[in-house]
Amino acid sequence: MADLPAGLGVVEPQFARVCEGGLDLECGRRLESVTVAYERYGHLNAARDNVILVCHALSGGAHAAGRHAGAHKPGWWDVMIGPGKAFDTDRYCVVCSNVLGSCYGTTGPASPDPATGRPFGRRFPVVTVGDMVNVQKSLMDHLGVSRLHAVAGGSLGGMQALQWAAAFPGAVRSVIALATTHRHSPQQIAFNEIARRAVMSDPHWRGGDYYDGERPRAGLALARMLGHITYLSDRGMERKFGRRLRGDALRFDISGEFEVESYLEHQGRSFVDRFDANSLLYLSRALDYFDLAAGGRALADVFRDTDAAFLLLTFSSDWLYPPYQLEAVAAAAQSAGRPVVYREMASEYGHDAFLLEHEAQEPVIRAFLGNPTRYNPLRHSGPEAPSRCHAPIGDRGGLASPSACS
Amino acid sequence: MADLPAGLGVVEPQFARVCEGGLDLECGRRLESVTVAYERYGHLNAARDNVILVCHALSGGAHAAGRHAGAHKPGWWDVMIGPGKAFDTDRYCVVCSNVLGSCYGTTGPASPDPATGRPFGRRFPVVTVGDMVNVQKSLMDHLGVSRLHAVAGGSLGGMQALQWAAAFPGAVRSVIALATTHRHSPQQIAFNEIARRAVMSDPHWRGGDYYDGERPRAGLALARMLGHITYLSDRGMERKFGRRLRGDALRFDISGEFEVESYLEHQGRSFVDRFDANSLLYLSRALDYFDLAAGGRALADVFRDTDAAFLLLTFSSDWLYPPYQLEAVAAAAQSAGRPVVYREMASEYGHDAFLLEHEAQEPVIRAFLGNPTRYNPLRHSGPEAPSRCHAPIGDRGGLASPSACS
Repeated sequence: MADLPAGLGVVEPQFARVCEGGLDLECGRRLESVTVAYERYGHLNAARDNVILVCHALSGGAHAAGRHAGAHKPGWWDVMIGPGKAFDTDRYCVVCSNVLGSCYGTTGPASPDPATGRPFGRRFPVVTVGDMVNVQKSLMDHLGVSRLHAVAGGSLGGMQALQWAAAFPGAVRSVIALATTHRHSPQQIAFNEIARRAVMSDPHWRGGDYYDGERPRAGLALARMLGHITYLSDRGMERKFGRRLRGDALRFDISGEFEVESYLEHQGRSFVDRFDANSLLYLSRALDYFDLAAGGRALADVFRDTDAAFLLLTFSSDWLYPPYQLEAVAAAAQSAGRPVVYREMASEYGHDAFLLEHEAQEPVIRAFLGNPTRYNPLRHSGPEAPSRCHAPIGDRGGLASPSACS
Repeated sequence: MADLPAGLGVVEPQFARVCEGGLDLECGRRLESVTVAYERYGHLNAARDNVILVCHALSGGAHAAGRHAGAHKPGWWDVMIGPGKAFDTDRYCVVCSNVLGSCYGTTGPASPDPATGRPFGRRFPVVTVGDMVNVQKSLMDHLGVSRLHAVAGGSLGGMQALQWAAAFPGAVRSVIALATTHRHSPQQIAFNEIARRAVMSDPHWRGGDYYDGERPRAGLALARMLGHITYLSDRGMERKFGRRLRGDALRFDISGEFEVESYLEHQGRSFVDRFDANSLLYLSRALDYFDLAAGGRALADVFRDTDAAFLLLTFSSDWLYPPYQLEAVAAAAQSAGRPVVYREMASEYGHDAFLLEHEAQEPVIRAFLGNPTRYNPLRHSGPEAPSRCHAPIGDRGGLASPSACS
């Protein structure tokens, strides 16, 4: 381990059978057996109250930090998790588990269907963020943890964090949600529908039963390319690519002439080597179904029973999960009497900012985790001045005006 | 015609052979023969100086106004063109021609290649907005018109309008460009690349030689569905669809559950019945290549030689062609000494606003056409208060502050 940079070093995936007796899903169907892949960094204290559950986004997995033996790349949030980092493993026991429906070790459409012994494919039941969180709760029971110090995540991970507070109001001391929403909008649903149709239009998809043959690579790559446009911002793309060409001069070809096109092609191609097309269908659908205020329920009522404190972070150029969405969550949780800190951070990275702006996030998250109910961003200013932020209700008795923090 | 509403009544498409001796294209190749489909509304005056050339967007055609015999639907800009309308055919002779590369009567990839007698398909040369405008210029020569009273259009049509002023600086008295840009951004290129790949990934595309068999319907529909997301705004979609379901209750299906999904599916399906997949490839590529400031040329220099006046209209929620793009054109044309009126109109319709906000556009366009070099929006206020606008340089000597017009 001498050649590894300071950090967690080599980590190992773990697996657990959870949901004993089967898992009843929101769609009305049932999974008889659920396996969860997870990783754990840092030590569980004697009181078992120092666990931070980190939740991953659509294409992530349980490998959030450290390195697997022989791997070059660390986990997806390694910059944030480790000794002395924002999620400080000298202090907290950080757990990250792969979500239900994914393809990185937890039960999903590529897993064998116990009824046939062959991969579920499209016979896998439609799963929701609520189902994912039920599986995580079962994993926490398995680990003997009854209350989380925090649950944290961005995008789909942020939905899981919010869902924890809604579904298990007494089991969460604090919620950290980044670049996410309480409810998928029609535009968000629409982009996902295009991605799904790209996969399902690929003749190699074959109704989802492609595991014994060629995979729907072109369709999955196309879906991912579209995803990447929505993860970046207009200005960020201008800065990163401009109109630069792949070659020295214009070739006047119908496709693949600009650098931005090469970038997307590369992203699409590398994604199909690591992700299952059916998982993209199921996880994107879980995003679409997510609606904490379903059935006309007032969003504030969703947070009425929890005693959690909330840290909600958005990014100015994120147009896939625009700041107004988490701002609505902030207002609702605050009107339910919860301590809430909402910050819109200035960034050109678009939706990707939640993974890239770690320097700006780190001091905010670290300070919040240290004392979730009393954290005040007006006293703990990060390197990045937020364009809008709200102080916790306990400190100011209401939403701070935007100009108070900029 | 008694059953037709007041307007132009029945109109007929016309065709002209233009570019005698062949058309040299920007890509270095050559078309030996070009046919243009066009329509004409109103009468050419004796001085031949009352022509307004209207330019269509990606999926439009020469049929801009009136009705074809037996048709239910009028032309695509019928609300704006006709007796007493914004483009007043009692006063002006309005001409609209189908662009080079399209599939509505003008030479394009579905046209027979003289060398083989079979459709060009992918053997059709890559065409640019410059090439399209050269064809339009040849059509104007054919009609005996040496100077246009105005050239007007939105989106791809707006690029043609700007290109006219750049390529034929003495041939245009005024330019009306809506919801467009002087240069496709990497984000705009990226969306087009996804659309093209959707088409080309369809096994029925067959390298572009599908004309004697099944067409790449699924790929073209997918491309169009994506297009429609970019034509609407987040807020507009929220208002139009929300999270409403197609059926009475959640079915928990992987696709096609929400109204927004049905809408997109319908748009995709109806598009493939009326548009040629190869034309989508070529026209989207022409958009991508459009760059009036190519090769490091200052944008102001592009407008140095023209004596045209400019009316540039953008829409607040248009994120496909964001207002900052035409605002840059306004600043450049103004610094080149041209009379410029720039307005950002408040609208929730996104990019579609240029086709839908006709009531707000009409008084502005009508007044501008009446006296292009002296039109002042501060004196002619439309029903829709602009959130930002600039007065013509001749009236105010500089850009008006945004607050002066709101």
